[in-house]
Amino acid sequence: MSASFAYRRRVQFAETDLAGLVHFSMFFRYMEEAEHALWRAAGLTIARAGELTGWPRLAASFDFKAPLRFEEEFDVYVNVAHVTRKTMEYTFRIACGETHVGEGRIKTAFVSKRPNEPMRILELPADIIERLRSAAGD
Amino acid sequence: MSASFAYRRRVQFAETDLAGLVHFSMFFRYMEEAEHALWRAAGLTIARAGELTGWPRLAASFDFKAPLRFEEEFDVYVNVAHVTRKTMEYTFRIACGETHVGEGRIKTAFVSKRPNEPMRILELPADIIERLRSAAGD
Amino acid sequence: MSASFAYRRRVQFAETDLAGLVHFSMFFRYMEEAEHALWRAAGLTIARAGELTGWPRLAASFDFKAPLRFEEEFDVYVNVAHVTRKTMEYTFRIACGETHVGEGRIKTAFVSKRPNEPMRILELPADIIERLRSAAGD
Amino acid sequence: MSASFAYRRRVQFAETDLAGLVHFSMFFRYMEEAEHALWRAAGLTIARAGELTGWPRLAASFDFKAPLRFEEEFDVYVNVAHVTRKTMEYTFRIACGETHVGEGRIKTAFVSKRPNEPMRILELPADIIERLRSAAGD
Repeated sequence: MSASFAYRRRVQFAETDLAGLVHFSMFFRYMEEAEHALWRAAGLTIARAGELTGWPRLAASFDFKAPLRFEEEFDVYVNVAHVTRKTMEYTFRIACGETHVGEGRIKTAFVSKRPNEPMRILELPADIIERLRSAAGD
Repeated sequence: MSASFAYRRRVQFAETDLAGLVHFSMFFRYMEEAEHALWRAAGLTIARAGELTGWPRLAASFDFKAPLRFEEEFDVYVNVAHVTRKTMEYTFRIACGETHVGEGRIKTAFVSKRPNEPMRILELPADIIERLRSAAGD
Repeated sequence: MSASFAYRRRVQFAETDLAGLVHFSMFFRYMEEAEHALWRAAGLTIARAGELTGWPRLAASFDFKAPLRFEEEFDVYVNVAHVTRKTMEYTFRIACGETHVGEGRIKTAFVSKRPNEPMRILELPADIIERLRSAAGD
Repeated sequence: MSASFAYRRRVQFAETDLAGLVHFSMFFRYMEEAEHALWRAAGLTIARAGELTGWPRLAASFDFKAPLRFEEEFDVYVNVAHVTRKTMEYTFRIACGETHVGEGRIKTAFVSKRPNEPMRILELPADIIERLRSAAGD
């Protein structure tokens, strides 16, 4: 099994719903939090207010295998899985102790977003990809 | 083009992020809100606090085609797409006026969740499926 | 009893927590949604991405009298209560049918926020205050 | 200056809004997260799914002094401030490095919530209060 970047997190009360479990939409936030922790581990930050570039999501998915509950601690493992000239896909695996909680994907692109212009997809910056891959052990 | 159930919604301020657009995790909430509106249109409610059955998500995905912005009004179109003995998959399409915002899927199951027992997947209740299909125009 | 602006809303599933009720932090979002609906009713919008002015919150409070539950419909009543040269305070009352759910306050200011400068509080624009008061029936 | 319990947290991307700052409703979640961390430090947990007692909020307020931004790390300091026979009030102070971000209060009660009965306020359990006070250094 290959290396991954690991991000540890605890379930907060407001993240649960009346079914007593973490709401399914939260897993997309957990994946993104792990992505941003990977950027920090690579000495980078993914966003600054007012910037004219960004990393919007093209697609996101998650397969739910086991629920998470209030106050449980879990790990989100991130890898940089597929990189093309203009898109990057992360894969994620969530585990709570021995329990496999699920796995997901987020596909992203690098865009220019000038005021009053449509977003324009740019080539991925090679140095950023290299640093992320390296921080993820890929 | 086949019929769908339509749910209208307006983007709220807290749903945006520092990139100035709706945060990608919100689209999963918008899909779920539309699902629950479909249940109400079918004369049903998907959840009651303390119930010993539930409809947990098995998988969820969304493909993002255009962003949504603060105060924009959009429509979420729902269909009951694939039904097996134990799983049901909804498909969703989001549009903001003429703009195709994206499309997604949520796969769900019907479970029994008694205290101190693992969740157990049950057969889908045929009458509920029938009413949802009918409300969605499927 | 004086007039108010009324905003109707339904509780969504993701807004509940494992206690089976709406999470208390959501009431602050409900108040803000009602505030923004008041701005729209006055022919205004409170925010645009990239703007160099804004309406940050100085204080917010809520007194909880009765819980809200999944799928309940409720009304948020807004008034423009106290206006000084540089601050405006809204008052809110939430009711679900005959049930008094609670009441709250949000105090806000009008600021200039140029890049790389600290926020600076400006005088409130008199025409905006006038239009909000009028839309709220104050 | 008296002791407090300190909870450290980092701002996540989804917690910001289009103004480029943390959304004001998040500060209520940060206060609650710190409260629950205090409970854990006291060897307690505030909630379990399906429990017939709970700690609903009676009132909550926050005074905002400075904004928080994406990826900033901050500390939430908690104290058990006022305890009566049936209510307990926490006070909170948030700091980001040398910056005073704001302060708030949450007032809570201990209730019994049996199915199909209205919530009933009970006397506060003295041992829990003692352990929380001790963990907060009060």
